[in-house]
Amino acid sequence: MGERLKRIRVKALHDRIVSKEEAASWIKDGMTLGLSGFTRAGEVKAVPYALVERAKHESFKVNVYTGASLGSDIDKLFTEAGIVNRRLPFQVDRTMRKAINDGQINFVDQHLSHTAELVRSNVMPIDYAILEAISITENGEIILSSSVGNSLLFAEHAKNIIIELNTAWPENLEGVHDLYSPDPQGERTPIPLTKPDDRIGQTGIKVDLDKIKGIVFTDKLDEPSDIVPPDEETQTMANHLLDFLRKEIAQGRLTEKLAPIQAGIGSVANAVLHGMLQSEFEGLDVYSEVLQDAVFDLIDAGKVKSASCCSFAISEEKMKQVYGDFEKYRDKLVMRPQEISNHPEIIRRLGTISINTALEFDIYGNVNSTHVTGTKMMNGIGGSGDFARNARLAIFVTKSTAKNGEISSVVPFVSHVDHTEHDVDVVITEQGYADLRGLAPRERAPLIIENCVHPMYREQMREYYEEALKRGGHTPHVLEKAFSWHENLIKHGTMRELVHA
Amino acid sequence: MGERLKRIRVKALHDRIVSKEEAASWIKDGMTLGLSGFTRAGEVKAVPYALVERAKHESFKVNVYTGASLGSDIDKLFTEAGIVNRRLPFQVDRTMRKAINDGQINFVDQHLSHTAELVRSNVMPIDYAILEAISITENGEIILSSSVGNSLLFAEHAKNIIIELNTAWPENLEGVHDLYSPDPQGERTPIPLTKPDDRIGQTGIKVDLDKIKGIVFTDKLDEPSDIVPPDEETQTMANHLLDFLRKEIAQGRLTEKLAPIQAGIGSVANAVLHGMLQSEFEGLDVYSEVLQDAVFDLIDAGKVKSASCCSFAISEEKMKQVYGDFEKYRDKLVMRPQEISNHPEIIRRLGTISINTALEFDIYGNVNSTHVTGTKMMNGIGGSGDFARNARLAIFVTKSTAKNGEISSVVPFVSHVDHTEHDVDVVITEQGYADLRGLAPRERAPLIIENCVHPMYREQMREYYEEALKRGGHTPHVLEKAFSWHENLIKHGTMRELVHA
Repeated sequence: MGERLKRIRVKALHDRIVSKEEAASWIKDGMTLGLSGFTRAGEVKAVPYALVERAKHESFKVNVYTGASLGSDIDKLFTEAGIVNRRLPFQVDRTMRKAINDGQINFVDQHLSHTAELVRSNVMPIDYAILEAISITENGEIILSSSVGNSLLFAEHAKNIIIELNTAWPENLEGVHDLYSPDPQGERTPIPLTKPDDRIGQTGIKVDLDKIKGIVFTDKLDEPSDIVPPDEETQTMANHLLDFLRKEIAQGRLTEKLAPIQAGIGSVANAVLHGMLQSEFEGLDVYSEVLQDAVFDLIDAGKVKSASCCSFAISEEKMKQVYGDFEKYRDKLVMRPQEISNHPEIIRRLGTISINTALEFDIYGNVNSTHVTGTKMMNGIGGSGDFARNARLAIFVTKSTAKNGEISSVVPFVSHVDHTEHDVDVVITEQGYADLRGLAPRERAPLIIENCVHPMYREQMREYYEEALKRGGHTPHVLEKAFSWHENLIKHGTMRELVHA
Repeated sequence: MGERLKRIRVKALHDRIVSKEEAASWIKDGMTLGLSGFTRAGEVKAVPYALVERAKHESFKVNVYTGASLGSDIDKLFTEAGIVNRRLPFQVDRTMRKAINDGQINFVDQHLSHTAELVRSNVMPIDYAILEAISITENGEIILSSSVGNSLLFAEHAKNIIIELNTAWPENLEGVHDLYSPDPQGERTPIPLTKPDDRIGQTGIKVDLDKIKGIVFTDKLDEPSDIVPPDEETQTMANHLLDFLRKEIAQGRLTEKLAPIQAGIGSVANAVLHGMLQSEFEGLDVYSEVLQDAVFDLIDAGKVKSASCCSFAISEEKMKQVYGDFEKYRDKLVMRPQEISNHPEIIRRLGTISINTALEFDIYGNVNSTHVTGTKMMNGIGGSGDFARNARLAIFVTKSTAKNGEISSVVPFVSHVDHTEHDVDVVITEQGYADLRGLAPRERAPLIIENCVHPMYREQMREYYEEALKRGGHTPHVLEKAFSWHENLIKHGTMRELVHA
């Protein structure tokens, strides 16, 4: 206990140490919890399990707000225990996803930068903030772990705070966080960040210590993230993207330092970043939500000079390397609240190059990031909209087909719109890319059809578009066939026209 | 000529005075023009006519970029002359609309705040800026007239500038404009505006005078704007909105000063603002794109203490009143570039209450602002997306039916998405309002159906939703019927189910 106590450098807090069961006992039916955790990093790892235990002999429901996705199977266990009424703003768990799609959990799919304003303006009040920390300093500042997410917001606005002090984290993570909270709207000054690596806030969360109702010790690192290695198609897509960026440089719109890069999670983003390892690009800045292995590889290679994020989600091997020698990376890294990593003010000011994954896009450039056949939620919009709307370059990537070719990821009309035609600059598949900037719908469609649609679907798409053109309009469509590809998929397991099947 | 010359206070520019025909002769086939004009205010009124004349015996096409809509029938005459290749970011002309929908003009429907970044980063270069001004000062600053729009941007980035010096405007409009241009992305500092009436820029456009290739005199005010008086339904909608705002005050989320108000053009916005005349609200700020008569009435009544805009679009009577006694209004008014009036950084910082008109919305809160039956462009998205995404309250209003009830403005699935479910807080019809904040799709749908759908369509919508619920999913839909209401409208002239007809 002695070693652990050193992590709570304010002695007055030592009497707040409780068991996870006791902390969980404070949570009442109907309460709203604000949990730390973003991209399965830095989530609390004890109190949630105790809550699940309680649910075995007690009936209650809570609202669960987070940064983004939780690791440690918490969303799964919460769902199985049946204790979640409302969940926001993002999740990635298979079990929870099913409950959401069955209508058992009220999932609110929010832009990751939006949650903060709703909490701050008291539209969505919080009862308990439950936050993972690595220490509490002499000044009573809570030092967060491998993600910031909405933790600062929750700490400031929750009525009570429970800290999970996780001794598995090296204490020298202290200093990597940069915590800045805008004032309420109407009393707010500009966010003073003008460069991706600017530090504008505090390294820990300073709150009224009376709000800290309990401290629970834990001792387990995050689950390591899986890194999906590039395959031939993701490699090809990465090459298309790098080609596009080279053309922008040739036209004088970018330099070899590019612009601050944001890359969503996924195999294509990973392939793109790895593609940069062998490229001429250098002196790069990253201004993103999550840092995965590839960014650390780019730092090691001297290609990336700074990386701003909201969480680390790295593999087991990379965890050993980074947390084992954190001083090597310290001066390159800044970890921020998701409100700042995703803030429209900052993204527009910096002019990021934003690379996000589409579930499907249509011939006019509308993007679906969330809903399978328009109805079934996958994970959520996450931060893709925060970035796409205000990026210098809003780039969406997807393989042109899925499920062994039975699904075309380019469709006549997306079955759900997360990013409108107004917000999408470039779409990329392994077939090629379409630069949609400054183009009218009737210019975009042929470009997308010829450059991005898989050859297996190209003729079928040309037929749709030609029929639509006969109907006319600024954005030609055959409304009764707009979703026919999705309908075929539901009924027959393929988007391919049955006459060709 | 003597009186007119006094408006050009830099003598060296006197030899640039040319006829509109000469100025028009400089425009070559394929060039891109950046024209002043926003909400049919402050457009150039001479050179466009000379261009149309030229087109009678010469074949050429140009790209026409503006602030927003042009008055003086310019879009109509340009369309009839067949000289427009590309048009952006907004228009409202009936003749041009038809040409757009026939595919004769490449119309690019952009967020009004986005055009600036594309011009600045040289994705869309400009050959000639053609700008209306009221004078050129001793320091060579161009003083704009009744709108700012993109004029500062065009002046800074065009290769050449033509000024139309319009002597019909009172010279004492000088001082109302506040012209601020952000630096390129990556070199940009925060926009220092923190209050709706802050002045952060220059009153005139300062450019290299060598770029001013010609000056043409004109002498005609803007066409007056039509003000649509409230009818019973718009009055009811305004009352719903005021009720909603009173509930926000009761919950401590707003005060009687509300928050900076943005209201789009239209009869409902007008009814809302007039509703405030007789209300308890006071000390109001307006941070909007266009000021119409109602804002000046609110200033006269002492209700509005400041109004920031990008243009004045007022009636004939109000023009006499305002331009006849401008000193009375001067200290209450600021007119800004549309990049600043619509900037995500500013809108998010101030936390506006944004009231915009929907063409239709669906049971999950997605909004279509632009496309009739998903294909035919009306006007364009304008600034509605700039505001909705970052507002404190993104409110969309529409009458629940159109065309004598044959069209329901609330539909199962909007036929085009301009504002996604992630960006819409409150929807209002004359039937009532639905506050969608923090709600899951399955919570939103019943609320919208019961509160907003016209009784004539309510049962039909309940049937759709119940059938969709049986299919399941986070956002339940019956894909093959999602657009059936629109299909019925196209085929049978009504959205009502034929079995009921």
